[in-house]
Amino acid sequence: MTPPTSRDDLTVTEVRLTPVLVADPPLLNTQGVHQPYTPRLIVEVVTAGGTTGLGETYGDTKYLELARPLADKLVGHPAGDLNRLFAEADDIAVDAARVSGQVDVGGLRGVQTADKLRLSVLSALEVACLDALGKSLGLPVHALLGGKVRDAVEYSAYLFYKWADHPEGVPAEKDDWGAAVDPAGVVEQARRFKEVYGFTSFKLKGGVFPPDEEIAAVRALAAAFPGHPLRLDPNGAWSVETSLKVAEELGDVLEYLEDPTLGTPAMAEVAARTGVPLATNMCVTTFAEIKEAFTRDAVQVVLSDHHYWGGLRNTQHLAAICRTFGVGVSMHSNTHLGISLAAMTHVAATVPNLHHACDSHYPWQSEDVLTERLTFEGGTVRVPDAPGLGVELDRDRLASLHRRWLDDDGALRDRDDAAAMRTAEPGWTRPTVPRW
Amino acid sequence: MTPPTSRDDLTVTEVRLTPVLVADPPLLNTQGVHQPYTPRLIVEVVTAGGTTGLGETYGDTKYLELARPLADKLVGHPAGDLNRLFAEADDIAVDAARVSGQVDVGGLRGVQTADKLRLSVLSALEVACLDALGKSLGLPVHALLGGKVRDAVEYSAYLFYKWADHPEGVPAEKDDWGAAVDPAGVVEQARRFKEVYGFTSFKLKGGVFPPDEEIAAVRALAAAFPGHPLRLDPNGAWSVETSLKVAEELGDVLEYLEDPTLGTPAMAEVAARTGVPLATNMCVTTFAEIKEAFTRDAVQVVLSDHHYWGGLRNTQHLAAICRTFGVGVSMHSNTHLGISLAAMTHVAATVPNLHHACDSHYPWQSEDVLTERLTFEGGTVRVPDAPGLGVELDRDRLASLHRRWLDDDGALRDRDDAAAMRTAEPGWTRPTVPRW
Repeated sequence: MTPPTSRDDLTVTEVRLTPVLVADPPLLNTQGVHQPYTPRLIVEVVTAGGTTGLGETYGDTKYLELARPLADKLVGHPAGDLNRLFAEADDIAVDAARVSGQVDVGGLRGVQTADKLRLSVLSALEVACLDALGKSLGLPVHALLGGKVRDAVEYSAYLFYKWADHPEGVPAEKDDWGAAVDPAGVVEQARRFKEVYGFTSFKLKGGVFPPDEEIAAVRALAAAFPGHPLRLDPNGAWSVETSLKVAEELGDVLEYLEDPTLGTPAMAEVAARTGVPLATNMCVTTFAEIKEAFTRDAVQVVLSDHHYWGGLRNTQHLAAICRTFGVGVSMHSNTHLGISLAAMTHVAATVPNLHHACDSHYPWQSEDVLTERLTFEGGTVRVPDAPGLGVELDRDRLASLHRRWLDDDGALRDRDDAAAMRTAEPGWTRPTVPRW
Repeated sequence: MTPPTSRDDLTVTEVRLTPVLVADPPLLNTQGVHQPYTPRLIVEVVTAGGTTGLGETYGDTKYLELARPLADKLVGHPAGDLNRLFAEADDIAVDAARVSGQVDVGGLRGVQTADKLRLSVLSALEVACLDALGKSLGLPVHALLGGKVRDAVEYSAYLFYKWADHPEGVPAEKDDWGAAVDPAGVVEQARRFKEVYGFTSFKLKGGVFPPDEEIAAVRALAAAFPGHPLRLDPNGAWSVETSLKVAEELGDVLEYLEDPTLGTPAMAEVAARTGVPLATNMCVTTFAEIKEAFTRDAVQVVLSDHHYWGGLRNTQHLAAICRTFGVGVSMHSNTHLGISLAAMTHVAATVPNLHHACDSHYPWQSEDVLTERLTFEGGTVRVPDAPGLGVELDRDRLASLHRRWLDDDGALRDRDDAAAMRTAEPGWTRPTVPRW
């Protein structure tokens, strides 16, 4: 084997940061509805050897504010110098207004702390560095993470209540999924997911309609797809008692119930009173939240979002912690593009104790910045064995989505599902929880 | 940067396993005395590209029994395919007699389980693979672990009560450290450690003499080296009450007290009743022991032994768990050679939350299998930046120490400090604990 001509070739010489706005269908959740475009940040790490690595993360303003100073900490250092980068990230101040008690996107991303904001940006830098390293060394990213333990990663169909269109008069891309606002619509959507992508497990984003309607939708799914794992995620919209009622009524068909209620004490109470496993990406979203939640047995499955947990290596640490405490682990998703789907797939392939299909919004994203989209077959994404992440940037597409971001007057640069809902229902305010 | 000519070059084609016997001075602990030679296993992983990676672990028979079947699982796979190796290791059966309630070396290595035996062997395979990978890719091992966060790793002087010589009539190498069986001898030994190696913190292996004598020794160290961090480790020889008495008397000078008493409940009781931090390499030595110990706040510092925790990546996972639970982390050591010191140094360099100097027996080992011994300067080992571990095997030395193992009649192939003690004190039996 020929070793690299020079280790200096791995030195980062430039980090390009490109915010984009990506089309998003009118998907409903308890806070409101997805805006027609959602912000993402595309990261390119360039090495002295001429390799470019790709990363992706949330693109709201508060992430963009941190991205440049954090990226500057990479320049001049080896792309593999990740522990140092993470250790020195604390030097970058976070605007207190960004984390002063305000939860993010109505709490959909869990608690907001300075550390978590930094980690959300670091994750994209880390992924881009791993991509650059892998390309430089001729190894897939999973090989830089100890190697894959499976050749394909299973994903779950991510079902949403949705409107056929974004509110009238709002500029938006048209999707062809139609509306889904009742059990029949949800089952129809699930059928298409199964047909096109081969998914065999289904997650319904709930918290949108009164619990009885959502129970009926899950019952309809169970009837249409007997034996398939089902999940319901109301994003913490319910009280403890409502959570228990839903658990009781759906216990025989649920793989798990995701974030039925908010906060560790309430989740612990629900967990203590039902045999239905509770999953979370709201109650445990940082390392700081683990101790209380795990010692109180508040959650049975942690859904890692590698963006806010701080990347692929931190996701592996999280998985090790979960394994140690007998807690399950899988992957959460917000709206994302193919770079992040590739990153999720690489890390998921390395986690031995991943026993639940991962979530991904990717099928809802008609746009991407890649030359070739990743595909689902039999509900799985094949783990790329090409060097790096195994994906390639399409500069024209990137430029086009960045142009949309540049042209925006600021209204869409920060995701706000409640604001989007107000365009349809002027009186809408972020619901107080528990909503039911 | 030139990528490797072929990823196939990283395929493991052969794993060489060479047991050796290494000279060990007559160091005392609560179980007895070190035998004049101790078994270690040297692992060489050879790749198709012609690179050889080095690893080292415990060499007792029960480890050797597992080494060949585990090594065979590597052959034909990429050297970086570690997660798969670990996942498939469970297929290798462990002789139940090896783990049937018997604790290892009088409990000096903590609980003995099948998993831990496998991990102890896997660690050497993992290190050898990382060494081979690093050499093949032109990267130091720390760079394969996310990079170093420090350029040198601090070690502590590992003080032992010791005899001047092994018992008469027993074949042994002579050491020039002389005896240390009282406070003056311990201080004298510490002076030499400080002078030759620059160590600034001191750990005394206790549990040998009645607690008052050991308290006097630590007091003498505190007087001779004011302000230097001190530690005392009786290997669980004390009752809860004795532990508390020692903590009370030495609280003002101890950095921590290591394994004063055995088992999580007793450690938790001591921890609850003293402000002196408790460290351990006996109470928490496997991932399975963490939950109870951490939820009961039984230990404040976990001393990882990368051998039995399963290697460098598992040590990083352990460090992440400790960080998450607000528990300190540092490194434990048993008798080892330079390969393991290099491995410890690489991983320790990558752990941000390593705030205590690591233990190492290395200064006690006059023999090694390296062409060039690692050195301590100012109490630290410089983190190697050469490809792989940065050490080189001396085949003549390896052959010579292996010859000693071949020539042994079996008496020394399994470490047994009580048996060694019986050669001096025929009536000696493994003390029951608590001893005091």
